[in-house]
Amino acid sequence: MTTPQPFAHRFSQLAEQRSPFCLGIDPSRDLLTRWGLPDNARGLRDFCERVADAAGSSVAVVKPQSAFFERHGPEGLQVLQELMRRFKSVGTLTLLDVKRGDIGSTMEAYAETVFGEGSAYEADAATFTAYLGLGALLKTLERARASGAAAFLVVRSSNPEGTSLQMSRGEDGRTVAEALADGLRAFNEKPGQDAAPVAGAVMGATLPDSDRGVIERLGGALLLTPGIGAQGAGFDDLKRLFAGREAQVIPTATRSVLEAGPDTAALRQALERHLAPARAFRATARPS
Amino acid sequence: MTTPQPFAHRFSQLAEQRSPFCLGIDPSRDLLTRWGLPDNARGLRDFCERVADAAGSSVAVVKPQSAFFERHGPEGLQVLQELMRRFKSVGTLTLLDVKRGDIGSTMEAYAETVFGEGSAYEADAATFTAYLGLGALLKTLERARASGAAAFLVVRSSNPEGTSLQMSRGEDGRTVAEALADGLRAFNEKPGQDAAPVAGAVMGATLPDSDRGVIERLGGALLLTPGIGAQGAGFDDLKRLFAGREAQVIPTATRSVLEAGPDTAALRQALERHLAPARAFRATARPS
Repeated sequence: MTTPQPFAHRFSQLAEQRSPFCLGIDPSRDLLTRWGLPDNARGLRDFCERVADAAGSSVAVVKPQSAFFERHGPEGLQVLQELMRRFKSVGTLTLLDVKRGDIGSTMEAYAETVFGEGSAYEADAATFTAYLGLGALLKTLERARASGAAAFLVVRSSNPEGTSLQMSRGEDGRTVAEALADGLRAFNEKPGQDAAPVAGAVMGATLPDSDRGVIERLGGALLLTPGIGAQGAGFDDLKRLFAGREAQVIPTATRSVLEAGPDTAALRQALERHLAPARAFRATARPS
Repeated sequence: MTTPQPFAHRFSQLAEQRSPFCLGIDPSRDLLTRWGLPDNARGLRDFCERVADAAGSSVAVVKPQSAFFERHGPEGLQVLQELMRRFKSVGTLTLLDVKRGDIGSTMEAYAETVFGEGSAYEADAATFTAYLGLGALLKTLERARASGAAAFLVVRSSNPEGTSLQMSRGEDGRTVAEALADGLRAFNEKPGQDAAPVAGAVMGATLPDSDRGVIERLGGALLLTPGIGAQGAGFDDLKRLFAGREAQVIPTATRSVLEAGPDTAALRQALERHLAPARAFRATARPS
């Protein structure tokens, strides 16, 4: 068993070779119905096979949302395993969107579920939340590092209901989001270790300019930015919000691609409409 | 399909008939090893069967921690389904500890996974977290209500790493925990609906007295209090912290029971050591 290259390095390579674009995979009941598929594990499997056929090896990352697989019980999670393996087999990075967050001993079990050879999902990355504190997630980050994976914590979400908690202030005057950003950066910049950042941040693509300060505090962390397309953000929002950080951004869209299905050619076209702008966005990071 | 009685009513009945005690079920690698079982789905199933044999119909509630089942992939979740069904068959309430927390559309899928007839787990209750805001969980609470279930949100955890976030203050001066407590109470007390509280709170059993204010703000919400026994709290902590609220408390212990295994008689004895004090604690709520 050899540790793979760090996620951040593998992402950079694929972003150059393919596109930095990340395809979210949300097989919701609504989408299954639109695609004329039954709302069960068989429909779920058909959905995923069509998405994988259409995506081929065109994207750097795929991000399946676990909830839409869990809905179908153990069979749904078999489909998730198959999907992860299929994308892995064509060299695509798998980022499992599970948003787990609990005390340390429970988080160890979750980390063992998603990260590392022989784990249930062998994900290249996964998402987490920190209501129980960043300290409870440190072993998760350590396991991600040891597995060549990355762990993305929600720092600022773009849903309006999240703002009041995330902008509350601790005794030292920092907001919850700022304190979390500082903690992730400190983990990434701990001396004496590989420079590849393991701790990433989920940052909504529709955040206001006032959140640029939080982005600065994150230093070199990778930035997963869901919400392009159907959630209202465009690549212009990314340019505004993440200016100077373009090479760290993983631009992510879900519904604006998947709604083009079930036809494979139509899906491929919708995907193409995201791949090129994502490449162009990343290219603005380079000195001319 | 008929809606079952609300969770709060069913809990009260069982608390009187049996004991209010809730048995946490955490089949960690450490415990599987101590019990001489293999760290795989077969070992997991043996573990759960022994726990169910020992518990019989003695407790009001069981609280399986999902992470320790998810670790074993789809097979582990089959074991979880079997465990839930077995306890349901003897009239015990099942509280699935999943701590899910995401945006609203994803939360709908999680709520459909755990609550309601025909869902993957048909849980009587489940746990959630609110880093993305209470607003993102409202439909989850609504689905819990429609299913006769309860949804427990982490308000104050007893792990020290959680304090800084949970005690941060919003613009209106309330802490994150206080604002969440007020929101849960408002949901429970919305006019024109059944008086049974659907929104519960996870409140660590080792919290300091300064958290009594948050407990007061929760009004009549049910209070899930993990951490008795191995995590350092005793029934004396419950008496101190939850004085006047005893009938709302679901006293929960996990390791202090499970560490007595694998012998069924020893497990039963360890369980008995919790059932009677839990009954006595609840009895202090009654006017003499």
